[in-house]
This record gives sequence, structure tokens and C-alpha cells, in this order.
Amino acid sequence: MKNFLDQDFLLQTKTAQQLYHDYAANMPIIDYHNHLPPAEIRSNKKFSTITEIWLKGDHYKWRAMRTFGIDENNITGNADDFTKFKVWAETVPYTMRNPLYHWTHLELKNPFGITDLLSPNTAEAIYKKCNEQLSSLPVYTILKQFNVEVLCTTDDPADSLEHHLAIKQNNAGIKVFPAFRPDKAMAVEDPATYNQYIDRLSAASNTSISNYRELLESLKKRHDFFHETGCRISDHGLETMYADDFTMAELEQSFQKVRKGEKLSEPLICQFKSATLHFICQWNAERNWAQQFHIGALRNNNTRLLQRLGADAGVDSIGDWQVAQPMSAFFNRLDKENKLAKTIIYNNNPSHNAVYATMIGNFQGGNTPGKIQFGSGWWFLDQKDGMEQQLNTLSNMGLLSLFVGMITDSRSFLSFPRHEYFRRILCNLIGNDVENGELPNDIQWLGKMIQDICYTNAKRYFNLQ
Amino acid sequence: MKNFLDQDFLLQTKTAQQLYHDYAANMPIIDYHNHLPPAEIRSNKKFSTITEIWLKGDHYKWRAMRTFGIDENNITGNADDFTKFKVWAETVPYTMRNPLYHWTHLELKNPFGITDLLSPNTAEAIYKKCNEQLSSLPVYTILKQFNVEVLCTTDDPADSLEHHLAIKQNNAGIKVFPAFRPDKAMAVEDPATYNQYIDRLSAASNTSISNYRELLESLKKRHDFFHETGCRISDHGLETMYADDFTMAELEQSFQKVRKGEKLSEPLICQFKSATLHFICQWNAERNWAQQFHIGALRNNNTRLLQRLGADAGVDSIGDWQVAQPMSAFFNRLDKENKLAKTIIYNNNPSHNAVYATMIGNFQGGNTPGKIQFGSGWWFLDQKDGMEQQLNTLSNMGLLSLFVGMITDSRSFLSFPRHEYFRRILCNLIGNDVENGELPNDIQWLGKMIQDICYTNAKRYFNLQ
Amino acid sequence: MKNFLDQDFLLQTKTAQQLYHDYAANMPIIDYHNHLPPAEIRSNKKFSTITEIWLKGDHYKWRAMRTFGIDENNITGNADDFTKFKVWAETVPYTMRNPLYHWTHLELKNPFGITDLLSPNTAEAIYKKCNEQLSSLPVYTILKQFNVEVLCTTDDPADSLEHHLAIKQNNAGIKVFPAFRPDKAMAVEDPATYNQYIDRLSAASNTSISNYRELLESLKKRHDFFHETGCRISDHGLETMYADDFTMAELEQSFQKVRKGEKLSEPLICQFKSATLHFICQWNAERNWAQQFHIGALRNNNTRLLQRLGADAGVDSIGDWQVAQPMSAFFNRLDKENKLAKTIIYNNNPSHNAVYATMIGNFQGGNTPGKIQFGSGWWFLDQKDGMEQQLNTLSNMGLLSLFVGMITDSRSFLSFPRHEYFRRILCNLIGNDVENGELPNDIQWLGKMIQDICYTNAKRYFNLQ
Repeated sequence: MKNFLDQDFLLQTKTAQQLYHDYAANMPIIDYHNHLPPAEIRSNKKFSTITEIWLKGDHYKWRAMRTFGIDENNITGNADDFTKFKVWAETVPYTMRNPLYHWTHLELKNPFGITDLLSPNTAEAIYKKCNEQLSSLPVYTILKQFNVEVLCTTDDPADSLEHHLAIKQNNAGIKVFPAFRPDKAMAVEDPATYNQYIDRLSAASNTSISNYRELLESLKKRHDFFHETGCRISDHGLETMYADDFTMAELEQSFQKVRKGEKLSEPLICQFKSATLHFICQWNAERNWAQQFHIGALRNNNTRLLQRLGADAGVDSIGDWQVAQPMSAFFNRLDKENKLAKTIIYNNNPSHNAVYATMIGNFQGGNTPGKIQFGSGWWFLDQKDGMEQQLNTLSNMGLLSLFVGMITDSRSFLSFPRHEYFRRILCNLIGNDVENGELPNDIQWLGKMIQDICYTNAKRYFNLQ
Repeated sequence: MKNFLDQDFLLQTKTAQQLYHDYAANMPIIDYHNHLPPAEIRSNKKFSTITEIWLKGDHYKWRAMRTFGIDENNITGNADDFTKFKVWAETVPYTMRNPLYHWTHLELKNPFGITDLLSPNTAEAIYKKCNEQLSSLPVYTILKQFNVEVLCTTDDPADSLEHHLAIKQNNAGIKVFPAFRPDKAMAVEDPATYNQYIDRLSAASNTSISNYRELLESLKKRHDFFHETGCRISDHGLETMYADDFTMAELEQSFQKVRKGEKLSEPLICQFKSATLHFICQWNAERNWAQQFHIGALRNNNTRLLQRLGADAGVDSIGDWQVAQPMSAFFNRLDKENKLAKTIIYNNNPSHNAVYATMIGNFQGGNTPGKIQFGSGWWFLDQKDGMEQQLNTLSNMGLLSLFVGMITDSRSFLSFPRHEYFRRILCNLIGNDVENGELPNDIQWLGKMIQDICYTNAKRYFNLQ
Repeated sequence: MKNFLDQDFLLQTKTAQQLYHDYAANMPIIDYHNHLPPAEIRSNKKFSTITEIWLKGDHYKWRAMRTFGIDENNITGNADDFTKFKVWAETVPYTMRNPLYHWTHLELKNPFGITDLLSPNTAEAIYKKCNEQLSSLPVYTILKQFNVEVLCTTDDPADSLEHHLAIKQNNAGIKVFPAFRPDKAMAVEDPATYNQYIDRLSAASNTSISNYRELLESLKKRHDFFHETGCRISDHGLETMYADDFTMAELEQSFQKVRKGEKLSEPLICQFKSATLHFICQWNAERNWAQQFHIGALRNNNTRLLQRLGADAGVDSIGDWQVAQPMSAFFNRLDKENKLAKTIIYNNNPSHNAVYATMIGNFQGGNTPGKIQFGSGWWFLDQKDGMEQQLNTLSNMGLLSLFVGMITDSRSFLSFPRHEYFRRILCNLIGNDVENGELPNDIQWLGKMIQDICYTNAKRYFNLQ
């Protein structure tokens, strides 16, 4: 009987324990994809309550509380911070077997040193203890405690990057970079919102955008500016892949139509996105960036909550679009032009893991080992089973040893234990294989492989300076 | 080495054994979805042979025997009961690793107390022993031996519910309720059969049905009548979900066309079903029923056997329709009207588990904890791996602790050991987690959680009186 | 701690070890589907280097080397054999957890007796040792060392079968049969290539092919000729299934169009293939052949490498077409005509396993136990997890005991350890079940079951003389 969450948590064999403690645990963190707010990094923000840092933006927790029957007012409404914390503490014992249960207690342990289990009985004491400590845990202190070396946030092309520039200036010991996420520049399905966005982009790039070519020029200017600021990564959120044919004349026509506030047909929307993404990916290759594709989330399913709370309200789920053929066509078109950049594809539907893990093998080659990557378990798959499935599928159908590893993908500064969680799971899989005689008992080699996956591969792959 | 099917069957750890024997084993059974014949409950039927109760309606066993090469005449034909039993006994040793092997021996053990393995060598002795015992095992005796507290059968709106009314009158110690399954009222794809059905429904509801509005009135009358009889559950069998737009005029037109015996186009069929299901689901919400959706079976694949034996002949399999978007749209439309009832979705394709488990999270909330449920492993997934996958996916993407648990979904009074099977599997998963240090060793809390899943959650959720 | 790759490799329990060593290990091999070149069997070819026999045609290894960043010239280009071997040896340590790592060392162990791990350090010594031994390891010696009893290659209807006839004549102690693979006779999507093929087929069958009926006659002649040569198996590679309606007039029209070099529309291509495959499958039934369908590979994704290297260049991956409905329709149409032959369906997408495993149950029956088979883990699924998933899904949804077992599907004479690998995995699953009390501890019965799956079922099923 192992104790819950002890030092050998998730490490079922001696070999796994050795691999984790001797090789994985002390590697720095390169968190190359997250949604941390640059403004809060810049200001080295202090949080006044655990509710503020833990519950304010966390739609995973909101979703669990709704399932448990908590009133929305106590989740996202006007209730005070302690009330919100208490309803979360009520919910926690009912989250057993959900990653929230592990995350919650890993995060209480580190940075707060709390090993009591959160429940209504312990809620008040834990609330006080966390709040006290938070007064001496500003953002940079937290980041250093977690041994974070590099952070990449997620930023819109129209963003001024003022916070990033200031962070660079401050030079406070942690490397922080923006990532280029141009989703809004492609979202022609909603002309009104799109046109507002184009105005913002025009202002940010100091470019008039009266036609499609100027849209591309404007985006390219921002791409260049992001590059100057140190950005080496783009990120793209897509329901599914598309690789439609297009001509510049057709794109121009579509663009003008949208600018007049008219709706495009489904095929024209798809064509517009296919083309615009294609051009951006060409720039990514020219700049030797790495491009990330987050594919397959079915978002904003609940109109009632979307209207009340906006996007990212915890009413998203897993989609089941067919993806293999358009994904192949999209990458092949770039590859034929010798314009396929380093690429990471993230999958949100576990039954598509094998499609993704084999797709990457079609476009490998050149000077970058593991040039095309199958990214770590994303969103709903960011849990033990999901990670194991991603790791096993990648192992069986590709080369695990070249994997660039884990990211938090989080909005919270407390989410870095997810790297610890990933590392333990990785070491456990390898440890089991060794003890079962399925891998040679060569700890030094396997230790190096684990350090590569946890740190060195990402350092080499992204080459962020 | 554990012995086959001993008291700790499927319980691999001490913790699992403790959880099962101390908490799960003695909980009563609420079998809220099955296909037991109300007439046989009413009459407290005695079965003359094990063949009659075991093989007559069990297409799972037919399918296995066909695979083994048994002549159809000895499966569903004119062969005598002993011959049919013997060919089944020949097949059984070849079903190892199929759930039939476990089910067979669990059912021989309880209620018959037989622990010999069924094979050609033991066939005759077992046949005799079972038949002898069956003479003192009428339906109610069987049900009480299995500790059944509540049964919900599956009933057509046109059914008079005469047997249910008589069962209620008899008050023989087990609560038996109908469930409202209006599939035939939506099956406009076959006008001839549909029109016969409409006549039956018209008679049952004592309503003329000359237009679509009257169809709805008639169905609503039956819905009301089912409610009066104690029904609190509807059930819907669908290939995939649909959520098409409609107007009453369009529905009226489609209805008139079908009534004239004309075929509707595929989109019109889909629209008709979308709309009719939407209206029924509104009534479910108004009555605070729970609605079940069984989604994804590809039925009647073999025309030769369909024509010989009719539906449910053992020639159904797993479909691969895309389901996420229409399911989201269907539930969202009801949710926007504040008419989304308690809902259980059952999935027949294991690669869709994650879609279902995350879909439910989009529509939770209100006063019912676990309002939207991902139902237990259905049909082909009603086996150890299938149940573990459902439980693990639900755990990772929802709140397992609020799950309303297992059902037999069976046509046979001998199928109740499936609840025992489920409970053992559940306790084993939890036991493993505890012993691996992935859950705290809090047996009392975990015991309560298991009792909730096996019994208490369903009792609270359905509130069947 | 088990040693890597020792005699009990993959056998985690005593029972598994007993089942493997006492029952499975010594069974002969019936490799009823592979891509071995008949010419090399006929000539009893000797290979001059391990590079020639191991790396020349193995796109699995090419793919891994590309992922690792090896220059294409050293993979498929002009580099010398030792250079090519060295870059493979560099790659091997990075393939840990990929089946290539196990295959590599199983193949070094047998036939070469090498137990050192391949890496840059051991590359030169292993290269020399293998090459020395290869001089006394011509094809038949290798085959006999692996205890191969029967081989079925994969042959085009236009093939003269001259090598097969000579092999038969030689009678060198191993049964070698062709299999009928008419994919090219259906490939109307590319008129130019198709028309060249039709000319070859016309010559091979000594039949003029000026219309669709003559195409069928020509194919039927070759089918008859293959039958005379001992062929009892056909094989069909399909992206997905199709079962469109057709008339002979429509097929004739399509055929004439293609013969004129015109492109057919997508629906007409699909109709042509549906029909032609239907006719061939009728002949398979009339001759009591077994027909194999390999379904779901998305091929030739990388145009750059396709143009450089041709097909089978290691740029294929897993597709995600919906398959259930057309597969059901295709088999049902044959079944209704009483023309459904023995059938094996191979699946390339693990999330479709359940669809395949339940589809076969719809069409069982008649005199052949296990008439419709779900084939062993194919291509990307030919690895431990993939095989376990296929075996478990088949177990849960069909009758494992009737399974016709493993094939190499390989182009290399060194791939026969894949049978050993499969047998160990199979014995391990059964062994675990026994020791967990999920199967009765009846070693004799289980040993027979394993021998059936490894050998006897295939012997009976194919009845190759």
C-alpha cells in the first residue's frame, strides 16, 4: 500500500523512482505554451486570496462545481472569495479520480507545503494558510520556486507586446516570450466581430487594410515585430484542418464581402482560412519558427452560459471531425514548397491519437530531429490516462525519445506541478518497461532520454534566446 | 494464482475486497433500464427449462453459436430445448475471454448454486439441475434472491400498461415501473409500418390522429398516462443525434405525406425526428423525468436473418456516425428554452467515450447533482474492458462519484449478476488506486462513494415512488 | 526485474511461460499474408549484406531514420551498405518503445544469435557478424530455421506466376502459394496507368479487353489460373469500403470513358470499384477461397518523397474514413446472394477496432467456424499495444478461440520473429487472466486454444494443399 501523494507518487517501481528523483525532478521547466497574462508577469503580481489565483479563471473547476450542483453565483457570480473557496472545498472530495483531485493537492503541496486533503472540514484553515503565504509569493517568486526557465504566453497579432517588452527590459531572471496566435485574423464567420478586429490590427500594424493583400502585409508586419521581440512560436486553434484550393482573386472577393458585413458561405469561410493559414505557415518556415496546431475542440456548446460569461466558460468539449485527409493535404502543400516549418500538432480526441502519431511520420526529415511533433495530451487529455495514451501511441508509431514534452497550457501561475505530474508518469512508464524486461536496464541512457523529453529536446528544438 | 470465479472474483487487492464485501455486495438493485416482459412479471412466471429462460431471447448467445458454426435450426429453429442447450454447452468453452463466459458461470452460480464449468461433459447434469430448481424459482423469487428493489421496463406509448397496472395492484414487494419509449412514433422512414403504428397509437390514446398536432396530442396523452402509472423515465434509441430546424408547417406537410404512404427524403425524415424528439423532451423536462438516449447501434445488418427472425436477431453491430455537433445542438436548444430534463446518454462505440464524457459537462447545473449522465457501458461495451473504459473516461472527464451506475438492459430474469460484475469491477478500480497511492486510503469515504454509485445516486436521481 | 529479451520475454507469469514454452513456441508458421518476392524464394537467394536483407525495402526503418534527422541519401540514396547500416545503428537507441527496437533485437537473436544491443558502438562488429552468417543463410535455410510451413505471397492478376510454378516444381520442402490481389484492375482513378495495366492484363490472360464484360472475363481467367496454381486467398487494399448500386450499362460506360483516357467523377469511380470488387468476391465464394480486406491506410501523403521513391516510401499513415455502413452493405449484398466467402478484415485505425470486431458477428454461420475474421493488428498496429487491443477487442466482441492468428505482412525474410512476438503476447494475456482468476486454470484446454490460434485454425480455415 503506497501512501497518497508521497514522494514516490505515481512511481510504481524502484527504477521509476530512480529515474524520477535522479534525472527528471531537478530539470528546469520550459513551458513553451500557456495562457499566463503578460501584465501579471510584468507587474510581479501578488494575489490577495487563493480564490483569486486558483478559481477566478479556471473553467475546469467551474465545470466540476456545476456538475456537483453548485449555484452559478457561487462559482462565477458575486459571491465573496471565501464562499467561492468553500463551495470548491465541498466539491473536491467528489472529484476523486478526476485530474482536479491530483492537481489540487499537488498545488497545495507546492508552493504552499500543505498536505491536508481539501474538504469542508479543512477549508477554512487551508484558506487562511494559503492567503498568508500568498502575501510573500509574487509571480516571480512562484516561478522561481517551480524552477521555471522559459515561458511562452499566447498573444494576438494586434497585441502591442508592451508587457513583453517591459518584461524583457526588467530582465528578472526568467525568459518570457510571446507566441503569435492569429486565430482572430481568420475568423471571418462573424463579420461584425471580424471587422472590429481588422481595425485593431490595422492600428497595431500602422497599416491600412482595405484589401486582402494589405491584410497579409499587416499580419506579416506583426509577425516580423513578434520575431524581433524574441517570439519563435506560432499557435493556431482549429476545429479541424482544411486545405482548400484558392486564388488571390477569390480571397479578395471574400474579404471585401466580409468587410461589407456580409456572411460568407461555409466553403468560402473554409477557403479563406485555408489560404490565410497557409501564408502564415510560410512565414513560420521562413523565420524557422515552430508552429503549433490545437485541433478538435468543440467550443461554446452552451449558449446560456456563453452569453452570461463569454468564451472559455467551461462549456467546451471534444469534437469528432474527420481530420486525416485535410491535415495531410495542408502539410503536403507546404512541404512541396519547401515551406513546412517545425510543427507540433495537439489532439483533443483520444480516438484520433493514432492518426496524429502516424501523420507526423509523413513529413519528417531535414536538419531538425523530431521536426514534426505530436504534442502532449491536450485539455481534456491532460490527465494520467490521456498522457499515457499520448506517450504510448507516440512510442509505438514514432520516436518518443525526440519528444519535446510537457506544457501547462494554463491561465494560472499555480499550474506548474503539471510538469511534475507528467515527469512522474513518464518515468513510471519507462520504469515499468525496464522491470518487465521490455527495455534494457541501462539507467544512464534512459535517464538521458528522460532529461531530453523533460527539458533538452525543447531547449534544442525551440532555441529560444 | 487466484481461483476462477471465487468470492474475490475480479478483486485484485485487499482494499478492493473490503470495498466490495463491506460496502457494495449488499446494496439493493435499482435496475432502471431493462427489457423484461411485464406480462411475465405480472404472472410471476415459472420457466420450464433453462433453455426457455436463458437461450430463447438471448441474441448474444445466438451470435456466439453462429460464429462457432452451429446450425441455425439448433439456435433459433425447431430443435428441442435439450438440443439447444447442448449446442450452447458445446460453444461455451470457446467463449473464453468473452463476457458470455463470465455471465454464464455467474448465472449458474446464482441463483442455481452450480460451480461446475459448462461444457459438453457437464451439459446434461447442469441441464437437469437447473430445470429442477426452476420449478421453485418463479419470477418474484428470482428477483428477491437478487435483492432487486426497483425495475423499469421499456414500453411503447401505444401500450395499454395493463400488466403494469396489475403489477402495481398486486403489490408483491418489488417496485416495477414502465419507461416511455416512443421510437415507433418517429419512425417515418417506413410509411406502411408507421401508418399501422399511428392507428394503434390513436386507439390507445382514444384520439383521432389526422394531423401532426394531433399526433403530438396523442403522444402527450400517453406521456401523461405513463406519468400517472409511475413512469419517470423515457428512453430513445437513435442511430445518431439530429437537431435540424423545423416549422410546424413543414412537419405537417411531412406527416400528411407519410400518411398517404409516400416516402420522405432523408433530410425530411431527419427533420421530423429532430422535431418530434424535441417536443417529447420538453414534456420530459416539464414532468421532471429522466430521459435516456441509446445512441450508435447499426442494426439489422444481415437481411437474410432479419427476414427469418425479425429484429434483435443478433445481427447488430457498432456504428461510427459523427455525433458531437448534432448532440450539442440538440441539448443546447432544450437548454436555451430551460427545458433540458435530467439526461443519460449511452454510447455504443468505445472510441466516442470521450466525446460523451465531455459533452455532459456542457449542460450540468441546477438542483440535480450529476444532472447530465454518461451511462454505463452499453450492449457490446457491457463487459469488463468496456465498463472500465466508461468508468475511467467518466472519471477523467467528469465526476464519477455522481454516476447513477449499472443496469442490465436485458430481456432475461437471470441477468442480474451483471450488477455484481459491475460492482466488482468498480471496487477493483478504486482498490487499485488506493493501493497505488493514487487515492487516499479513506475506506469510509470510498465505501460511501461506491454505495452511491451502486444504489444511492440512482435512488435520489430517479426518485421512483 | 526481468532481463531484457530473455527466454521469458513478454511472459509476465508462470502460466504464460508454461503456455508459451510448452504449447506455442514449437508450432510451425503458416504465414498466409506477406509481400515476399517469389523470385527470391525460387532462386533461394543469398544476401550479401545485412543492409540488403534488412534495410533495402523496409520503409518502417526509413521513416524512423528520417524522424531522427538522417540525410535521405544515407537512407534510400547512393550511400554504401555499411554507411546505411551505421546510420541505422545510430538511430536504433532512439527507437526504444517503438516495435522497431524489439524487432531489431529479436531478428539479431534469430537467426544470427546476436544478443548485443545495436548502437554506434556495436555497429561494425554486428555488421561483420551478420554478413558472415548470411553467406550460409540462403532463403530456404532461413525459412526452415524459423519453422515456416506455408507462405502466401501477394500477386497481381497479370503476374505470370512463373516463379510460383517453378517453386512448386522444385518442391523444396516449404509450401508457397500466390494470393490474388486485383487492386490495379480497379484503379480507374488514374486512366493512363490503368490503361497500361489493362494491356498487361490482356496479355497475361490472352484475352482482348475491349469492354467491361471482357475485363471481367479476363480477370476470371486469371482467378481460375491462380486457383489451379494452388491459390486459395485473395487480398484487397482499400481506403474505405464502398457498396454502391450499379448496372452493367453504367459500368460499361465508365469503362469506355477510362479507356479513352478520360477521368471519371468520384461517384463513378466508387461505383466501378464497388461493382468490380463485388464480382471478384462472388468468384471467391464459388471457389471457397478466403478473401482479405486491408482497410483504412492513407497512402502517399508526401508528394516530394513519392516522386523521388515511388509508393511504399514510408510516407503512409492512418486514415479516419467512416466505414461501418458501407462495409455492412457490401457484405450483406454478397450474403443475400449466398456468395459471401470466408472473409478476413484488417483494420488500420485502432479506434475502429470495435466496429470491425462487431461487424464480423453479423455474417457468421454455415459450416466454417469463425467464417468471418477480424485480422491481426495491421501495419502501424503491428506492435504490442496494437496486438493486445486487437486480441482484447476480438475477445470481448467475438470468439478469440477461432482466430486464425498472425501474419508478417512483410517484405523481408527476417521478419518471422513477429510470429514469436505475437505468440508471447497472446500467451501473456491468457496467463494473466488465469493468474487473476478470470479464466479457469485449465492449461490443457488453454494450450490447445493457443495452438489453434497460432497454427491449427489457419490450417483448417485456409486448407492450403
